Amino acid sequence: MKLATLKQGGRDGTLVVVSRDLGRCCPVPHIAPTLQAALDDWDELAPSLRAMYERLNAGEVEDAQPFSAAACQAPLPRAYQWLDGSAYMNHVELVRKARGADLPPSMYTDPIIYQGGSDSFIGPCDDIVAAEEWGIDFEAEVAAIIGDVPMGATAAEAAGAIRLLMLVNDVSLRNLIPAELAKGFGFVQSKPASAFSPVAVTPDELGAAWHDTRMHLPLRVALNGQPFGMPNAGVDATFDFGMLAAHVAKTRELEAGTIVGTGTVSNKQGGLWGSSIANGGVGYCCIVELRTYETLEQGKPSTGYMRAGDTVRIEVLDGDGRSVFGAIEQKVVVPALAPQSGGAHG
Amino acid sequence: MKLATLKQGGRDGTLVVVSRDLGRCCPVPHIAPTLQAALDDWDELAPSLRAMYERLNAGEVEDAQPFSAAACQAPLPRAYQWLDGSAYMNHVELVRKARGADLPPSMYTDPIIYQGGSDSFIGPCDDIVAAEEWGIDFEAEVAAIIGDVPMGATAAEAAGAIRLLMLVNDVSLRNLIPAELAKGFGFVQSKPASAFSPVAVTPDELGAAWHDTRMHLPLRVALNGQPFGMPNAGVDATFDFGMLAAHVAKTRELEAGTIVGTGTVSNKQGGLWGSSIANGGVGYCCIVELRTYETLEQGKPSTGYMRAGDTVRIEVLDGDGRSVFGAIEQKVVVPALAPQSGGAHG
Repeated sequence: MKLATLKQGGRDGTLVVVSRDLGRCCPVPHIAPTLQAALDDWDELAPSLRAMYERLNAGEVEDAQPFSAAACQAPLPRAYQWLDGSAYMNHVELVRKARGADLPPSMYTDPIIYQGGSDSFIGPCDDIVAAEEWGIDFEAEVAAIIGDVPMGATAAEAAGAIRLLMLVNDVSLRNLIPAELAKGFGFVQSKPASAFSPVAVTPDELGAAWHDTRMHLPLRVALNGQPFGMPNAGVDATFDFGMLAAHVAKTRELEAGTIVGTGTVSNKQGGLWGSSIANGGVGYCCIVELRTYETLEQGKPSTGYMRAGDTVRIEVLDGDGRSVFGAIEQKVVVPALAPQSGGAHG
Repeated sequence: MKLATLKQGGRDGTLVVVSRDLGRCCPVPHIAPTLQAALDDWDELAPSLRAMYERLNAGEVEDAQPFSAAACQAPLPRAYQWLDGSAYMNHVELVRKARGADLPPSMYTDPIIYQGGSDSFIGPCDDIVAAEEWGIDFEAEVAAIIGDVPMGATAAEAAGAIRLLMLVNDVSLRNLIPAELAKGFGFVQSKPASAFSPVAVTPDELGAAWHDTRMHLPLRVALNGQPFGMPNAGVDATFDFGMLAAHVAKTRELEAGTIVGTGTVSNKQGGLWGSSIANGGVGYCCIVELRTYETLEQGKPSTGYMRAGDTVRIEVLDGDGRSVFGAIEQKVVVPALAPQSGGAHG
């Protein structure tokens, strides 16, 4: 089943069921007006949504309308929780090497997760509004929306609560990160609004590519129309969605609609923490990894962060070459007002 | 105006208007079924809520019901954002000294804020469910619920978006914090579900005690019925709500219903970062501050963290001795299942 949220009907948008081929969609106000409403009563409402999905795929919904990614908000335009982990150790090693930060010795057994801002996500085709001097980078990731998870749940129990999967562009402001993390309390300014794929899908839509609570498909990233990365999300993923959710649920329950991300997808590919596409590798899902690779090989980075007008596209194709989630496709735009200097009065 | 949320009617509870003396309340489904719904359209709905508040205070609402804090959820049972700052430098200095952590040199000009979990808050009289070995501590704070704040807003603009004020018990698991913060991404396991005061109030309810975007009243904290702290929230508050919100809004908009906390209230009171109530001072709003004070004075802490059955009460009285927000009053209960060991499979 595929679901999306149109930019109409208020702050939470309008839930639509989307056909498997992403061609058509239909609102379902008689079942659930918004995706959060569907998640709040998933067990009761999902069968009706699924029945509508089958009718839509069979061409039996007369008032179905054309589906457009540009008309979409994030599947959850605002969510009660956004937890983003670091499941791909190659990313952690490269990014921390880039800023000279220590690697936690427990990182292979104790997940690194941050609590992200979830009040104002942006749509898959919305602009990235940020100042160039902040060091604008993308991070292509996979995320799960989960149902209620009780405190103390095991990884297997949390995995059983997975409802939907999405793609994420977890935009990161690299030049703000070192000073912010040095304060000790995690990201606030340096992780602006994340964008999500047009469509959220139930795991069965991935067929055989969904096993071990991981998606075993490449994440295809293009920067300004040129291939930048295609690492496989099922490779080198030390932690899965269930492990990440259970880690947080150790001390509190998680409420339905919580989004769990695995962090930037990254494949090790042997030496030097991976290879760029130009060098015959599978490339990267964020610019800072390529910059670190360049620094390790050539002594300094040669690729800059995103500038005004630059575009990033993130997509996953199934075994038959069909887009599973639709594409995130965003352009960088500078803020209308010049950014203020840092500090409390900014 | 005073508002609360009863534990009935679903995940977001039922919004009620509460009389100034906290004696009576009435649901307002014809105006807004939930507090988030009221916040989503505040400018349009607040006048109707205020009119009901005046009628309730005048004894003109026939079907008003008795108000009970124990029947309350948090005013926002789940919120889209919980940002907690560290406005009181005495707290930052003491807590970081306690765990041997560095003080950021910019801390007096650049607010320290963490993104907290907001999906599953608990009510003012709900149990604190945690294992004793986690090091259970309370943190008494003041928080504001704000409306929409655009990206790039000034502190004054953000201050203008303040809708309501509440008290918070930001429960902290002291023995989990050092290892979690060492990973570099902030709090996840070590900050379980926060509790909020029964009632959220508009700033005008504080009268002359609300100025400079700060509440100038003591926060009264009792541990097991004994006075533990009564520092004034208007003293030594380096940052106000507007400054904290504007800091985060530098790189993204904040959506209506965002909660901003000022961090644990703490007064310096001269030497040794403050004095306990036993020593004639105004005491503290968390146990770790007293433990650090004891360590500085006596070489080691003599006060333990909370144990099963221990209670904490947090309240604010106005100049006439009347409770402004109602009281947070919680008891520690150990989890039904013994806590799992740390790590991904916990």
